[in-house]
Amino acid sequence: MALIVQKYGGTSVGNVERIQNVARRVVRTAAEGHQVAVIVSAMSGETDRLTDLAHQLNPHPPSREMDVILNTGEQVTVALLAMAIEAQGYKSRSFLGHQVRIRTDSNYQNAKILDIDTKELVDSLSRGEVAVIAGFQGIDADGNLTTLGRGGSDTTAVAIAAALKAELCEICTDVDGVYTTDPNICPEARKIERISYEETLEMASLGAKVLHHRSVFFASKYQVNLSVRSSFNDNPGTLIVPAEESMEQVVVRAITYDKKAARIRFMGVKDEPGVAAKIFVPIGRAGVNVDLIIQNSSTDGFTDLTFTVAKEDEERALELCRRIAEELDATLDYDSKIAKLSIIGLGMRTHAGIAATFFDELAKAGINIEMVSTSEIKVSAVIREDQVDEAVRVLHRAFNLDKDVVYEESEPAAS
Amino acid sequence: MALIVQKYGGTSVGNVERIQNVARRVVRTAAEGHQVAVIVSAMSGETDRLTDLAHQLNPHPPSREMDVILNTGEQVTVALLAMAIEAQGYKSRSFLGHQVRIRTDSNYQNAKILDIDTKELVDSLSRGEVAVIAGFQGIDADGNLTTLGRGGSDTTAVAIAAALKAELCEICTDVDGVYTTDPNICPEARKIERISYEETLEMASLGAKVLHHRSVFFASKYQVNLSVRSSFNDNPGTLIVPAEESMEQVVVRAITYDKKAARIRFMGVKDEPGVAAKIFVPIGRAGVNVDLIIQNSSTDGFTDLTFTVAKEDEERALELCRRIAEELDATLDYDSKIAKLSIIGLGMRTHAGIAATFFDELAKAGINIEMVSTSEIKVSAVIREDQVDEAVRVLHRAFNLDKDVVYEESEPAAS
Repeated sequence: MALIVQKYGGTSVGNVERIQNVARRVVRTAAEGHQVAVIVSAMSGETDRLTDLAHQLNPHPPSREMDVILNTGEQVTVALLAMAIEAQGYKSRSFLGHQVRIRTDSNYQNAKILDIDTKELVDSLSRGEVAVIAGFQGIDADGNLTTLGRGGSDTTAVAIAAALKAELCEICTDVDGVYTTDPNICPEARKIERISYEETLEMASLGAKVLHHRSVFFASKYQVNLSVRSSFNDNPGTLIVPAEESMEQVVVRAITYDKKAARIRFMGVKDEPGVAAKIFVPIGRAGVNVDLIIQNSSTDGFTDLTFTVAKEDEERALELCRRIAEELDATLDYDSKIAKLSIIGLGMRTHAGIAATFFDELAKAGINIEMVSTSEIKVSAVIREDQVDEAVRVLHRAFNLDKDVVYEESEPAAS
Repeated sequence: MALIVQKYGGTSVGNVERIQNVARRVVRTAAEGHQVAVIVSAMSGETDRLTDLAHQLNPHPPSREMDVILNTGEQVTVALLAMAIEAQGYKSRSFLGHQVRIRTDSNYQNAKILDIDTKELVDSLSRGEVAVIAGFQGIDADGNLTTLGRGGSDTTAVAIAAALKAELCEICTDVDGVYTTDPNICPEARKIERISYEETLEMASLGAKVLHHRSVFFASKYQVNLSVRSSFNDNPGTLIVPAEESMEQVVVRAITYDKKAARIRFMGVKDEPGVAAKIFVPIGRAGVNVDLIIQNSSTDGFTDLTFTVAKEDEERALELCRRIAEELDATLDYDSKIAKLSIIGLGMRTHAGIAATFFDELAKAGINIEMVSTSEIKVSAVIREDQVDEAVRVLHRAFNLDKDVVYEESEPAAS
């Protein structure tokens, strides 16, 4: 008997039939003799409906009240799923964020989990009940409802799995697992059987949409075995686990892209201490995340500073940057037709020349690279947005991602 | 400066425009310098939608989970109203049942309020915020969500008003106040300006739909000044207050009817001690409320026992009664085409002959009386269902309810 945590997203519980389907899957796991804790999201469309209602009443709804209304989405789903499980003859009990207690800070709409009191959950599971827990929500020290922001339900699932020391945390969603790249762009994309936290974390940060990086980070921190699989079939999914030595044999595990990036450049910035801080401190304070940053080497005491931001933050960032550029007496230039392309793999640590192959393959395909950034296990480049699809296909083939992974002693072909 | 509690029902907050309207009324009261606590119901239709969803997943949904899902109805409204009030420039804060804390017993779907902790509310009001409180909901000692059942939001409002020692508790609804009888049946029906708790309580129990008897009982117990008025206009409503001496001058204050009654009769019951208990104890245990009970005087050691139940309980009651009749060797007879008609007035205490006038007027109109029950301040009769409308109109005229109430020393005409 194991303790399994399963998480079902909004699409998986999007209507009555799908909730019944989830109930069947949960009951099957319980019937195999496991203790099961299930985390669910709001039914798909519900969060949008509630947000829309709120905005009709207040164009800038107070975030405390937004969290009160958004909390109802998951509250409806947990009750419905618990009812559906009981209808199938199994005992079940729903838990809201404040009932579990998932204690968070008071940062409404983007709260962080501080701790989880598992007593009620453990009691429920040991009574043989399926515990159905509302994802995405928590409660602060003053009893105010909070929500965890993007990827919140995944984060809840991993946090609950960590707190309960679950054997496995299954993220059940509308795809079969983590793929070598986006199958919509590259038909040869293959499902990955086993991948490390580090690689998944890079993928999530670099544009892959399957898991939010917060939940992967949490899983890595607490060594929770994660599985990503489909809610709609029984295919084995992708297992996300601590790095294993054999994983380094695969040089490039996956290719990601992010078309939601925009580039901002300060030109003619005086090259003196404190300049970067003058630019990035106010941007950070405004809550704009800055991604790749590149500073050219100085010529005549002046330098260029280039970075990317999310397209959705572009306007806000630009407004700030215009003021900063004026102060610094620099000129500003921006480009929203760019995209970020990345290759990721643990094997890069031990295999040389990967970046060279990456540049070479793109060059052969006539794709220009505008910015580059590397880490131990990834290479990222900024290229033109309209060349991304082609670039992904070229690299997928070049790094043999369309082939079976064979763990062997010989060097992979692409290195 | 006074502390005013206002309660708005489901119709009053049924859409975005109506919530904005409620926000305007609340803000106006606050702008007059009052502290305002507002209790709201779920948007009309929402409870039905949620109940329907639940029944699609489980024909007999567990009542604990029903309360979890039903709680979301009011949760959405409090957040929306607080946002709407903030949009109009006033500070506001929403409170859920478990945040106020409205502690109840664990009788899901029909919980009773045990106590209310007003600390958070008082703090909020003294910060100048409009406190928006979810009606209908509470929390039990183990942290489970509960709902108060029928008339729950009115009960919340009165309980909050009592706990805060509010000057006035306004029940804002889709009618202008408490009427002398149902205006849909009797166009001469008039709004009552001032009425006692006792009369209102009888009216609520005898079929008037404006207020649930639980909330009137609560108001009477804690001497809360209640007002029933419209959410959609500024007409003064009906004030419900402790009995005043002048009120006794009005012999008949109102006429109510209840078409949702059915009659059950046991015939040939042996007239011996304990027979009534054998009938009514099992019926009571099954949760069926018995209303009028009449036992004929015994002939030859046998008697008849007749009583009424709500039509919705008829089938359940009949099933039980068939078994009981078999045990008692009695015969059973039932009739669902009946209705209960009542006149109510504090003045009956001091004015004789009211029942006689009541019987006389009905007789003149050719309406037969099948059962009668009286109390200090009411006379009720069971008549044929299809004669109710006519009976109401006849009595309304006979007792001068279509005339202005003039408090004077002379005896009213009808006594």
